[in-house]
Amino acid sequence: MRPDDANIAGNVHGGTILKMIEEAGAIISTRHCNSQAGEPCVAALARVERTDFLSPMCIGEVANVSAEITYTSRHSVEVQVNVMSENILTGAKKLTNKATLWYVPLSLKNVNKVLEVPPMQYTRKEQEDEGKKRYEEQKLDRLETKQRNGDVIFPIINPDRQTKEPHTVGYSQSSLIHLVGPSDCTLLGFVHGGVTMKLMDEVAGIVAARHCKTNIVTASVDAINFHEKIKKGCVITISGRMTFTSNKSMEIEVFVDADPFVDEPRERYRAVSAFFTYVSLSKEGKPLPVPQLLTETEDEKRRFEEGKGRYLQTKAKRQAQMQQAAQQ
Amino acid sequence: MRPDDANIAGNVHGGTILKMIEEAGAIISTRHCNSQAGEPCVAALARVERTDFLSPMCIGEVANVSAEITYTSRHSVEVQVNVMSENILTGAKKLTNKATLWYVPLSLKNVNKVLEVPPMQYTRKEQEDEGKKRYEEQKLDRLETKQRNGDVIFPIINPDRQTKEPHTVGYSQSSLIHLVGPSDCTLLGFVHGGVTMKLMDEVAGIVAARHCKTNIVTASVDAINFHEKIKKGCVITISGRMTFTSNKSMEIEVFVDADPFVDEPRERYRAVSAFFTYVSLSKEGKPLPVPQLLTETEDEKRRFEEGKGRYLQTKAKRQAQMQQAAQQ
Amino acid sequence: MRPDDANIAGNVHGGTILKMIEEAGAIISTRHCNSQAGEPCVAALARVERTDFLSPMCIGEVANVSAEITYTSRHSVEVQVNVMSENILTGAKKLTNKATLWYVPLSLKNVNKVLEVPPMQYTRKEQEDEGKKRYEEQKLDRLETKQRNGDVIFPIINPDRQTKEPHTVGYSQSSLIHLVGPSDCTLLGFVHGGVTMKLMDEVAGIVAARHCKTNIVTASVDAINFHEKIKKGCVITISGRMTFTSNKSMEIEVFVDADPFVDEPRERYRAVSAFFTYVSLSKEGKPLPVPQLLTETEDEKRRFEEGKGRYLQTKAKRQAQMQQAAQQ
Repeated sequence: MRPDDANIAGNVHGGTILKMIEEAGAIISTRHCNSQAGEPCVAALARVERTDFLSPMCIGEVANVSAEITYTSRHSVEVQVNVMSENILTGAKKLTNKATLWYVPLSLKNVNKVLEVPPMQYTRKEQEDEGKKRYEEQKLDRLETKQRNGDVIFPIINPDRQTKEPHTVGYSQSSLIHLVGPSDCTLLGFVHGGVTMKLMDEVAGIVAARHCKTNIVTASVDAINFHEKIKKGCVITISGRMTFTSNKSMEIEVFVDADPFVDEPRERYRAVSAFFTYVSLSKEGKPLPVPQLLTETEDEKRRFEEGKGRYLQTKAKRQAQMQQAAQQ
Repeated sequence: MRPDDANIAGNVHGGTILKMIEEAGAIISTRHCNSQAGEPCVAALARVERTDFLSPMCIGEVANVSAEITYTSRHSVEVQVNVMSENILTGAKKLTNKATLWYVPLSLKNVNKVLEVPPMQYTRKEQEDEGKKRYEEQKLDRLETKQRNGDVIFPIINPDRQTKEPHTVGYSQSSLIHLVGPSDCTLLGFVHGGVTMKLMDEVAGIVAARHCKTNIVTASVDAINFHEKIKKGCVITISGRMTFTSNKSMEIEVFVDADPFVDEPRERYRAVSAFFTYVSLSKEGKPLPVPQLLTETEDEKRRFEEGKGRYLQTKAKRQAQMQQAAQQ
Repeated sequence: MRPDDANIAGNVHGGTILKMIEEAGAIISTRHCNSQAGEPCVAALARVERTDFLSPMCIGEVANVSAEITYTSRHSVEVQVNVMSENILTGAKKLTNKATLWYVPLSLKNVNKVLEVPPMQYTRKEQEDEGKKRYEEQKLDRLETKQRNGDVIFPIINPDRQTKEPHTVGYSQSSLIHLVGPSDCTLLGFVHGGVTMKLMDEVAGIVAARHCKTNIVTASVDAINFHEKIKKGCVITISGRMTFTSNKSMEIEVFVDADPFVDEPRERYRAVSAFFTYVSLSKEGKPLPVPQLLTETEDEKRRFEEGKGRYLQTKAKRQAQMQQAAQQ
């Protein structure tokens, strides 16, 4: 990990880690999908499950990324990726991140054709059953998000940001545009999912820093669905706004909108959206209280309540897991 | 803004800011030029007006770049770009740069064809008049520079490279300078050996391509010794010259010299040197014959013979290994 | 492997592979040298043995880099690195490169102190003997090169820069070459204007720093006209020379020349030129006086006067603007 991978406090950006995770996932699933004779294909990222950043990684540490295929359906592959940080001076190793990704094989000759996935061998019957359950769950969630995303596109770039009060939604909201270059893309000419996630984390980080004006780090990312491909040469706008704050965390919603502007007749479209959770850290790395978000409009109040719902749900789930672990 | 965007004092390079300005200008003008049905096009930069850097930007600050179209002529677009630096910890904002750029739409199908620009709507008549005046002024200046530039080409370094005959040592010799940035360095603040070798290969590749004007690839690198460390902030000069050609290969000697120019009292020193061997390939990937190197001076002839010695020695060693392998 | 890692024919640059090899070597040897309690250290590359590129690697392939420690002396570590290219579509794997590197552990507290290497365990006695033989051989070769290198420093480009007096034009003039890669280019395959300006600023900054040996920053750039397009695959030479100094500023003229060297029959041409103005700053960010430029030839004197003209004109314009602003 190099200076450019990290913020000024030396913590590696969550987006850099997400990008490495996706790279490992894309390699292992493309390799698997081409393991039987047949039409050559490239695995495209369809979804990343909710993931927590368990411990920070620092400049000078070595990242060990390992990936394993854990389930295959007829048209998709589930990959489990683990990231360990290793301090090669002290030998200390820590689990930084566990992530689950879903890939779909697209034909190299016709990018709109989804190919069949060679079935994997399970060592135990339960593995297959559990995988099937996870597959059905994510399928349902993808369907729901697809319907929600279809609604409207609202560029949240706010011309009057300057006049906004600190701690309002308008004060911290941010956006950046990026021209998709050749090295951002796969062999099919579409943006790597990891490149998109890195940019999303960058915007979310700026929103969080503008809100609390301290050193901030990514704590978790909720499930992200990639419905629409983004082509080489597109301009993408990545926008972020704060939706919710608890005592020690901030939730930021991030949108990726693509302008297919030169050779395609279509309109701007929403390519991806997701919620990132950030925490604020003191110089010693201790969590700091977060200033409460001031909501002004009805929409902002509604989104705050929805964010609170997600926060409480995640908290309850975590407590249930801890109790379960304690009982075992 | 990241460590690699800035010098060792933490000031962001003017060039990094100019690059962002141009990216914003290219996006907005390409978008405008494609806003009406018609031949798809890409806006190409034709001119940047004189611009001042009003206040420095630093590592860790956020750059806000905003662009607006301010005038359109029949075949060109004027874009005004403002850059603000924002310290997201203190909230302080400063105007860093105001720039005016001119773009011309080129057809995606035929890059030599300049297309028409959809006219913009002005809110006041004076805007159009003032824009027209700026347009006429820059047109005049462009014309003048074109005439001046057309005159002669005077490379200011190595003035006699132009006059060298093809296939001489002087004709293909090349050098590049590189400012050592944070991401080039280890935890100790010294350049990674791998970064140095990558730059050496880059120069050697250019020498080889200049000599034979075909697609070339690295065939081997001889032993490289790293006697001297190179510190962050140094400027290094990497120079390459051809020493020897066989029927199908070229040997290029590469030197790395370091200028410890800001805080150290010492002189420029030679940090590394090595020999790279390249081969020339046809479009089908087959080895091509290499034009023989023309040696002129006594030194060049001596180096050619030394190179021939290394070449024959390596060849003999390889044959011995193959015989040994065949016998086993 | 991405488009930026390769030449226009799709072959990955040897330098990219050398960089990965060294990264693997540095990680494994730093880890080994810190494996016993003691002073923390970082392994620094001392030598790379001769290495062959056995088969080409292409864009879209996955590079598998594996490293192993094969010998340790008291103060050095020998690492063997193998690189395999893997086509994940066909499953084909090829050995691309075998390399041997030598590292030396330097103390993190005192970079001039070489620490002791924990001895490795050999499975067979011959391994140690063979390693010792290789160790002695490379030691001898390093000693020889050191003596050779110590002799003279002969920069092969611009041979007389060394002999120039400080503050002359020749002393600070600089140039760099850049091979235009895919990420430097627009959809049309021509260099982004912003990429060119960034390189121009880089060269101008090095000229300014060589002249005044302090921290320098860009103050302004005069109008730049882009008459000629630069194509992907070109080599461009960016050269800078100082033309004028005032009490607190330096003017540097920068040229961009393009060599369309592979598939086009045309000659080198001047693509862009511009004047950059730099100021020198103290550690506290205050402007410092600039040493006066020593002009030697008639041309240099003429250019100095022209620069003075531009300087006075800009100064007058700025004063007029300030007066106007004060009156409003």
